[in-house]
Amino acid sequence: MDNLGIDFVSELVGTALLVLLGCGVVANVALTKSKGFNGGTLMVNFGWGLAVFAGVIVSYASGAHLNPAVTLGLVANGAKTFGGADSLVDVSFVSVIAYIGAQLIGAIIGAVFCWLAYKQHFDEEPEPANKLGVFSTGPSIRSYGWNLVTEIIGTFVLVFVVIGFGRQGATGGLAALGALPVALLVVGIGASLGGPTGYAINPARDLGPRIAHAILPIKGKGPSDWGYSWVPIVGPIIGGVLAGLLAIPLLPILG
Amino acid sequence: MDNLGIDFVSELVGTALLVLLGCGVVANVALTKSKGFNGGTLMVNFGWGLAVFAGVIVSYASGAHLNPAVTLGLVANGAKTFGGADSLVDVSFVSVIAYIGAQLIGAIIGAVFCWLAYKQHFDEEPEPANKLGVFSTGPSIRSYGWNLVTEIIGTFVLVFVVIGFGRQGATGGLAALGALPVALLVVGIGASLGGPTGYAINPARDLGPRIAHAILPIKGKGPSDWGYSWVPIVGPIIGGVLAGLLAIPLLPILG
Amino acid sequence: MDNLGIDFVSELVGTALLVLLGCGVVANVALTKSKGFNGGTLMVNFGWGLAVFAGVIVSYASGAHLNPAVTLGLVANGAKTFGGADSLVDVSFVSVIAYIGAQLIGAIIGAVFCWLAYKQHFDEEPEPANKLGVFSTGPSIRSYGWNLVTEIIGTFVLVFVVIGFGRQGATGGLAALGALPVALLVVGIGASLGGPTGYAINPARDLGPRIAHAILPIKGKGPSDWGYSWVPIVGPIIGGVLAGLLAIPLLPILG
Amino acid sequence: MDNLGIDFVSELVGTALLVLLGCGVVANVALTKSKGFNGGTLMVNFGWGLAVFAGVIVSYASGAHLNPAVTLGLVANGAKTFGGADSLVDVSFVSVIAYIGAQLIGAIIGAVFCWLAYKQHFDEEPEPANKLGVFSTGPSIRSYGWNLVTEIIGTFVLVFVVIGFGRQGATGGLAALGALPVALLVVGIGASLGGPTGYAINPARDLGPRIAHAILPIKGKGPSDWGYSWVPIVGPIIGGVLAGLLAIPLLPILG
Repeated sequence: MDNLGIDFVSELVGTALLVLLGCGVVANVALTKSKGFNGGTLMVNFGWGLAVFAGVIVSYASGAHLNPAVTLGLVANGAKTFGGADSLVDVSFVSVIAYIGAQLIGAIIGAVFCWLAYKQHFDEEPEPANKLGVFSTGPSIRSYGWNLVTEIIGTFVLVFVVIGFGRQGATGGLAALGALPVALLVVGIGASLGGPTGYAINPARDLGPRIAHAILPIKGKGPSDWGYSWVPIVGPIIGGVLAGLLAIPLLPILG
Repeated sequence: MDNLGIDFVSELVGTALLVLLGCGVVANVALTKSKGFNGGTLMVNFGWGLAVFAGVIVSYASGAHLNPAVTLGLVANGAKTFGGADSLVDVSFVSVIAYIGAQLIGAIIGAVFCWLAYKQHFDEEPEPANKLGVFSTGPSIRSYGWNLVTEIIGTFVLVFVVIGFGRQGATGGLAALGALPVALLVVGIGASLGGPTGYAINPARDLGPRIAHAILPIKGKGPSDWGYSWVPIVGPIIGGVLAGLLAIPLLPILG
Repeated sequence: MDNLGIDFVSELVGTALLVLLGCGVVANVALTKSKGFNGGTLMVNFGWGLAVFAGVIVSYASGAHLNPAVTLGLVANGAKTFGGADSLVDVSFVSVIAYIGAQLIGAIIGAVFCWLAYKQHFDEEPEPANKLGVFSTGPSIRSYGWNLVTEIIGTFVLVFVVIGFGRQGATGGLAALGALPVALLVVGIGASLGGPTGYAINPARDLGPRIAHAILPIKGKGPSDWGYSWVPIVGPIIGGVLAGLLAIPLLPILG
Repeated sequence: MDNLGIDFVSELVGTALLVLLGCGVVANVALTKSKGFNGGTLMVNFGWGLAVFAGVIVSYASGAHLNPAVTLGLVANGAKTFGGADSLVDVSFVSVIAYIGAQLIGAIIGAVFCWLAYKQHFDEEPEPANKLGVFSTGPSIRSYGWNLVTEIIGTFVLVFVVIGFGRQGATGGLAALGALPVALLVVGIGASLGGPTGYAINPARDLGPRIAHAILPIKGKGPSDWGYSWVPIVGPIIGGVLAGLLAIPLLPILG
């Protein structure tokens, strides 16, 4: 397989794992009769952080973006290549589309497996909003403008610090512990900035499962809330690109 | 002692420690008058993860499988040898049986010590189902087919990522922190995929304590639910073998 | 930019990130309708610890003090220079003021972004004390003398152990995991010594957001409790300086 | 100072920090009006684990036993020397007494500072048993024999795995992360085996604070429960010595 093909598979598998485990922890906490029902926000934060941990481990080849906001943030930051030493590709329209496409397809696949793992709990859950909440994020207080601000700030923190890791040689390392800092960062962003919108901070993580929610024959499901769906796409992209741009002057200073 | 004997002892001791601490956290959360009563799902997830951490530390010699699904997954993946540098054995019918036998015996021993540590709380616990729940997993919504699906998915994630660790040189390392990634992975799988079945994801972890439950003179115990017992054996084996097989084409790409 | 300018930017950005995420987790747990409402003390402890983690990562250039008590503790400890290898500055009145000034300005900026991220939840929160509590610490039982004692003890532990890290070559390392020990330490201090005063243990972390609270047009805000504000300034400074002084005879022994 | 003097100071300071933070988290969760009131068992487990983390960091010189059960377990294991490279002492009656004496004195000092940090909360706490519970452990169901069994099993796990770390070169390392495995182990033992007795697993951790409780002028305190006090001394010593002895044949196999 050529290098872009390797990176495509890598992003797809990593994002599938990320979304399977990430949506899984919400299912565990939110769906009726689940053993983790009402397990608390910290459990959700750790669940998503460790979902990132697992996804980054298996997505080593492509550099483990797993997130269009990271991919676009790196472009804005001036990256010339994507991927690890054995699967380098030039940054181009085609490679960016391949990365984002793989992330979106992976996210849909991960959401399907989450649904299968919790099939009976979806069937017995009476509240349609809880079902959608396993797949996609939604705001606590609906206000597209302010929801966008929250997603921009959260994603800015994610991408800015991730670029900082890269400069310090920590992500992309060979040891599995190289995935730990970004996992901890996601636990932290979730705990700290997840209150208003549920921290999508990743367009693929939100849109992919929303598509799955719309397509899958989920018993008793309600609408997929497409009216809100642009916020967790546009906000993270803005935040990621801003982080990539601001990192150009700042991170040479900082790191 | 010959190499297979070393590996046998190593798997036995490691799995005993895994099950002692793993069943222990359930006892702490589930049994009446225990200080951790109602301590929450995240506490159970961390307890099992850190049980894996301790088990992997002491089971260094044999490669710390501690789980027949890992052993069989490695066989399916085409492993030629088991064990660390000083106790290599060829993969064969005998060595596979020795590994799985050690894991099962270790799991029974660990469950016995868990019972001893919580002896009085077992005695005073009024509900037989809570007693069995300390030893073995059970489904939230009983449906053998879907319960099997959940166990297959959970174990697939475990074995697939563990094989990924191996490729990146992280497990089997000399430092005690080499056990941390797999511990974190188990915390994550528990939080994310533990809702429907309690994440056995390990036939020895479930069958060993179930045998202990059946044999031990536990005051006021109920039946050992043998009707369900095949699910957390067959599901993890299928999941582990699938992960080992799929890792053959995928992990050379990914890692 | 000259070295002191680099360190100034580094401390400012790192402290802004620290306060954004740190105040953010309190907002998530304390403000009405937030998804993390009533998420528990452990979540707050992890949130602040991971805020430190993110702040230390991006503040590599200046040595990641992020806290006037650390800066002054290092001075008391006899430090001759501040900052990493590429941005060393001599310890002097000017450099100390630059560090502390950057920390204070960064803390104000971080608090502003926290307010923006949670804007609607501040607007809908009925209780003014909860709003102030997101920004600044306050005592459970008001008694300036004993509150001071608690802050002195907590900050002593922070600065003493941080200086211990430095001797053992762990902070300031290139790997992103170099930030993990101090993050864990802050989780621990919060869990263990945060009960009486909410563990400011950092004058900038408390004063900066308090200034922001006083200035920002927060809907329905109450007073900024300036009567208490000197405690989380004076206590941490005393604790940090004591730690720096006691580390002179003790840490050569201990480390 | 001679080597034994260095090790004495090191054990004393490390154990003081361990007990200050460890008893602190119980105070935070148990005492009235504390911010962490009812923070949950997992918070207590993490608090004690991170207390160990901080104690081990500052007690590098002496090898960070911080626990007579570890010291005696190492003696039973056949250790010839104690302490790090720069402060080696021969194992002898005098050095063992010096280590244990330092641990006990350190534990008393740590408990005093915990009392000072939470002074007002002790004063306002109506229930004497909650006050004692901050200092020392007590059984959920009183039965000296079974309580002893629980403490033996818990301490066996601690000392056995800690000796395992040592063989794998992880503790005593220069990096601050060398303290992380033992911290995680203590979180795990607490979560898994802490239910019946509150996991003293350390005679100094229990006896030192109990002495402090008896001596300090704590407002409205009750008796110090000396009737139980021998259990968390004798149990951990038995468990630690058994672990040291069993590690002689087993760990050469395992590690």
